[in-house]
Amino acid sequence: MPDLFVGVDLGGTNIKAGLVSTAGEVLHRHRIPTRSELGPEGVVQRIAEAVRACIREAERRGGAVRGVGVGSPGTIDLGSGVILFSPNMPGWRDIPLRSMAEKALGVPCRIANDANVAALGEQWVGAGRGARSLVLLTLGTGIGGGIVTNGRIWEGATGVAGEIGHMCINPDGPACGCGSRGCLEAYASATAMVRRLREAMEQGAQSALAARAADLTARDIHEAALAGDAVARANVEATGRYLGVGVSNILHILNPEVVAFSGGVTAAGDMLMGPCLEEVRRRTLEASRAGVRICFSQLPEDAGVIGAARYVMLD
Amino acid sequence: MPDLFVGVDLGGTNIKAGLVSTAGEVLHRHRIPTRSELGPEGVVQRIAEAVRACIREAERRGGAVRGVGVGSPGTIDLGSGVILFSPNMPGWRDIPLRSMAEKALGVPCRIANDANVAALGEQWVGAGRGARSLVLLTLGTGIGGGIVTNGRIWEGATGVAGEIGHMCINPDGPACGCGSRGCLEAYASATAMVRRLREAMEQGAQSALAARAADLTARDIHEAALAGDAVARANVEATGRYLGVGVSNILHILNPEVVAFSGGVTAAGDMLMGPCLEEVRRRTLEASRAGVRICFSQLPEDAGVIGAARYVMLD
Repeated sequence: MPDLFVGVDLGGTNIKAGLVSTAGEVLHRHRIPTRSELGPEGVVQRIAEAVRACIREAERRGGAVRGVGVGSPGTIDLGSGVILFSPNMPGWRDIPLRSMAEKALGVPCRIANDANVAALGEQWVGAGRGARSLVLLTLGTGIGGGIVTNGRIWEGATGVAGEIGHMCINPDGPACGCGSRGCLEAYASATAMVRRLREAMEQGAQSALAARAADLTARDIHEAALAGDAVARANVEATGRYLGVGVSNILHILNPEVVAFSGGVTAAGDMLMGPCLEEVRRRTLEASRAGVRICFSQLPEDAGVIGAARYVMLD
Repeated sequence: MPDLFVGVDLGGTNIKAGLVSTAGEVLHRHRIPTRSELGPEGVVQRIAEAVRACIREAERRGGAVRGVGVGSPGTIDLGSGVILFSPNMPGWRDIPLRSMAEKALGVPCRIANDANVAALGEQWVGAGRGARSLVLLTLGTGIGGGIVTNGRIWEGATGVAGEIGHMCINPDGPACGCGSRGCLEAYASATAMVRRLREAMEQGAQSALAARAADLTARDIHEAALAGDAVARANVEATGRYLGVGVSNILHILNPEVVAFSGGVTAAGDMLMGPCLEEVRRRTLEASRAGVRICFSQLPEDAGVIGAARYVMLD
């Protein structure tokens, strides 16, 4: 009877659960809306529903689910599995998610940070397959991250390691949502791209994006750049260079085998990666960049689910 | 018969060896000039001489030396114990220090980076006593560092983790010796302090240090600041603030329990630490700085020796 595990990627919009083998294959997927308006108790019931669908599938295959891992946004007390606070989930404060889930499911559960488990999934069977250390940067509305060393998440003293988006790359740079200035997130997130493009247009830059300045997205900027808009292209390339400064810092500090990017901003592909790699070459000591792989996620859909399953597997 | 270990701190000027107990006490010290002009073979003989003095002391105490750890400057191939390159030791290229030392001494030897083993010593019985994670910044002519997680050095994929001095905190900042710009080392090392003070005087700032601008040191700047020189005081305080930006980045990325500073620049004491802590408070997410200890080294003389002994002890 093969040992199987369930990984859950708890998002503000969807709950993604997956049945994962000890080889890192996703054997079955179950995805339902989170419906965070139901509050913590209601959402835990929905997590349990999605996990039970995976457990039934495990039984159908003659296997047994040995543990459930949940990757959750927010600040988590790792020892107790309590979600202290989650900004995207209304009413989530001091929610004992682990004990609630264990009671509902009768299976050992572990809760960890969503970006951290995504990094673990990438290291295990994604962009870091074969490597023991990886740093993941999630490039979306904000910038998050996760650090894997020796094949395990480095969660830090209080569980909040990997806040790579709040690495300052210019003390006098643009204001960041965190209250500081010049954070990587204030330069290389989707939000920062849109802000810089608007500022450029306000200062008179001529862009085809002027018509929809009000509800601009990072994707719009990339598409305009592909269509030949010079202002948009300069924006994407600058984003890549800022990212390169951040990656160079990660290489100097952590010397990982792999640095991977995931999230919406990565849709810009080579137009982002080219300037990023150039900046890394310019700024990084040869010994710190030799042999390092810098690349996009190879599990854009499944890293969270696989990593959450791996997390409980390693426990 | 108690198990004892020898730690060696190999510097460009002196070889410091110490007999270290499993409780982290230094039972005996032996210090001799390195005489790097003798070349690698000659220096290894001198290391062996210093270690033998410690072994004799161990025997006198009825103990036995179970291993020798050496903290060395330069780039080291950790698996083989070969020093690939050491900038401060003329002719040191591809030197198999570990096998040379084992042959000379007949005891298991391990070689590691000097700043890394100093971090391990601090974590074990210095500024990080009781903590499992610590980041050390060595503030001297340059800025080095070491990272300890789970009570062990995080050496990185190729052994060069902890190059904290080359964290960029301003892409357009002053040129750094590494070829990049705006590295922490270009802001908060002794060299950077002297450069900024000279620049301020060239731009017309009135300082008592004008008389000895030619051979100025960081210590001169601190002493002038204590004596009431406003330009010198502003220089030390700015150094503290830059250091605070770097520490904030370390807290966000690594979330360690302790950040410690060692090296000559720390002589500036509170005048440096005050602005540093203020900058950390301003810039760091509450969750990333809660409970973190930021302080000076508690083993300014012995961290390298104790950490080198601990390194071989953990092997």
